Amino acid sequence: MERARPGRTMRAAIIEAPGEIKVGDRPYPVVVEPTDAVVRVVLTCVCGGDMWQYRGESPFEPGPIGHEFVGVVEDVGSEVRGITKGDLVIAPTAYSDGTCPNCRAGIANACLAGGFWAVGGIDGGQGEALRVPFAESTLVRVPGSGHSEETMRSLLALSDVMGTGHHAALSAGVKPGSVVAVIGDHAVGLCAILAARRLGAGRIIALSRKPARRALARSFGATDVVAERGDTATEAVLELTDRVGVDGALECVGTAQSFTTAVAVTRPGGMVGYVGVPHGVEVPINTMFFRNVGLRGGAAPVHTYIPELLDDVLQGRLDPGRVFDFETDLEAIAAAYAAMDERRAIKSLVRVGTV
Amino acid sequence: MERARPGRTMRAAIIEAPGEIKVGDRPYPVVVEPTDAVVRVVLTCVCGGDMWQYRGESPFEPGPIGHEFVGVVEDVGSEVRGITKGDLVIAPTAYSDGTCPNCRAGIANACLAGGFWAVGGIDGGQGEALRVPFAESTLVRVPGSGHSEETMRSLLALSDVMGTGHHAALSAGVKPGSVVAVIGDHAVGLCAILAARRLGAGRIIALSRKPARRALARSFGATDVVAERGDTATEAVLELTDRVGVDGALECVGTAQSFTTAVAVTRPGGMVGYVGVPHGVEVPINTMFFRNVGLRGGAAPVHTYIPELLDDVLQGRLDPGRVFDFETDLEAIAAAYAAMDERRAIKSLVRVGTV
Repeated sequence: MERARPGRTMRAAIIEAPGEIKVGDRPYPVVVEPTDAVVRVVLTCVCGGDMWQYRGESPFEPGPIGHEFVGVVEDVGSEVRGITKGDLVIAPTAYSDGTCPNCRAGIANACLAGGFWAVGGIDGGQGEALRVPFAESTLVRVPGSGHSEETMRSLLALSDVMGTGHHAALSAGVKPGSVVAVIGDHAVGLCAILAARRLGAGRIIALSRKPARRALARSFGATDVVAERGDTATEAVLELTDRVGVDGALECVGTAQSFTTAVAVTRPGGMVGYVGVPHGVEVPINTMFFRNVGLRGGAAPVHTYIPELLDDVLQGRLDPGRVFDFETDLEAIAAAYAAMDERRAIKSLVRVGTV
Repeated sequence: MERARPGRTMRAAIIEAPGEIKVGDRPYPVVVEPTDAVVRVVLTCVCGGDMWQYRGESPFEPGPIGHEFVGVVEDVGSEVRGITKGDLVIAPTAYSDGTCPNCRAGIANACLAGGFWAVGGIDGGQGEALRVPFAESTLVRVPGSGHSEETMRSLLALSDVMGTGHHAALSAGVKPGSVVAVIGDHAVGLCAILAARRLGAGRIIALSRKPARRALARSFGATDVVAERGDTATEAVLELTDRVGVDGALECVGTAQSFTTAVAVTRPGGMVGYVGVPHGVEVPINTMFFRNVGLRGGAAPVHTYIPELLDDVLQGRLDPGRVFDFETDLEAIAAAYAAMDERRAIKSLVRVGTV
């Protein structure tokens, strides 16, 4: 086993305060536990969740940041099986031991022994490399080699955003023929459209304002696009659905307004699948009670979803990488945040290394 | 078609103010629309929902009350098919046209043309007779005759409380082998235990304090009974489930405390099935988000559930009528409310007529 040199450092993004993303030096990670791997990052990106911190709307400890990456395995501990040096891997949003009751139930992001990137001394995804605990149960190996640029971008999307959109669709109960509304035209909302189409939704009403996003929404499978927000958006969706509402609403924002809209457009007996981190949301429980509208979702168990989505990406049936419309390198990562903050970018890709 | 005599009256319960249930005279109902039936009530009962009004905790218009009844068809309009004079019928909690999109989706209680008993000029279930709109799609005919007293009580339970318990269990996703907790030992909670057992739950943890209710809970299928409430109840359920929590929590109360407990005892990725009318509930959406706990339920679409439950009752496999542990007649119905208000009774049956 090749160990990293003592004193070796790497470059990594550091969030110092709201709005302040720097790139600094951190110790180059090494295998500590026999179940660890060290992964050299090839591509990473900026998540809507990172933006809540960047905007000072979610609390955080200053330090590394980022939780979406694909990379190449550099080193593995003695107990790691199935993952070897040189493998191209996708990392889901959390590391997990694969054996606890929550892992066995498919909710690896609630692993009793696991944790999240950029928390508790673990490196963030927005850096040159990470130590990955429980590498065997955490990382998903990508078969094949020489993947195209388009495929690489879609693989990166599987590390969080596409799995999260898929979680919204599954949570909303999308099945063949379903009529759905997707609230939110950020990258997650756009991936939720892809996911709804993939699950066979018959009609997909996207709530989207910006022309570029509306176009991508249509390209991803939206059959109708509503530019309104709030009560007028609700009215527009009801008009499109004979005033009954949609079978499922995919809530991909997390604000009070988006939540209210999601519940209001859902037909009696329908489901809201929500994946936007709630900020200031008050659930209209009495409305939901009398209309039998359910609510399911939350932090996506991305790990569970990667294998089936990966197969679709590799077969060319799924292209979530198209949500990346801004690109920079690690040293210029502050520009990636700024582009999303100013809504110039849907989602920013950060190129860190090469395969 | 035999019309009721003009000026004929009937006796019916009237809620005049919180705590004030009287029995008064009302016009005897007649067929008005060709889709109506007139049903003479045999058995009715008092619902937890009625108790919210009785206690002044839900708003109401003074007037008739009650929405659970079995009765005999006295008259039908010219367009009613499949229901004839003399039929024994169960009425679900709402009347519905059977054709609107919500009816077709199985949520008849959200029928666009339908409504509820004791509202908008329609009689309540706690009286001698009612005009039933959309009789053909609303009423469920009970096959056979000469049903035992035990069966009659269980048929009455199908008009709301058993269907509501079933809705809690379905909403919580109960399937064979599920580990569930039932919060609430009122009649709905007890029926939720029956429903969970019927759906094959492997372990049913009932939260119940009173000895008589604990005994019935065990008899209905509870494998464990927890007497604590609030945080200590949560702790007890977690201890019983290797600190992981239950697959599904069946919330059958509707208070802030019961809701908090339901969410807290549910494992990551699990579901809360809620059927208690929410009073002062604030949904802990951020806790639910990070633990992937979903929420589904609300007013039960009882109509959809009656056929399969009825079959089980008639085959002797289901006995929800055992929740009735207090009985009186219509003239003494105030005693039925008082017994439930003082928690002397689990659920009060009111005998109005004979088959």
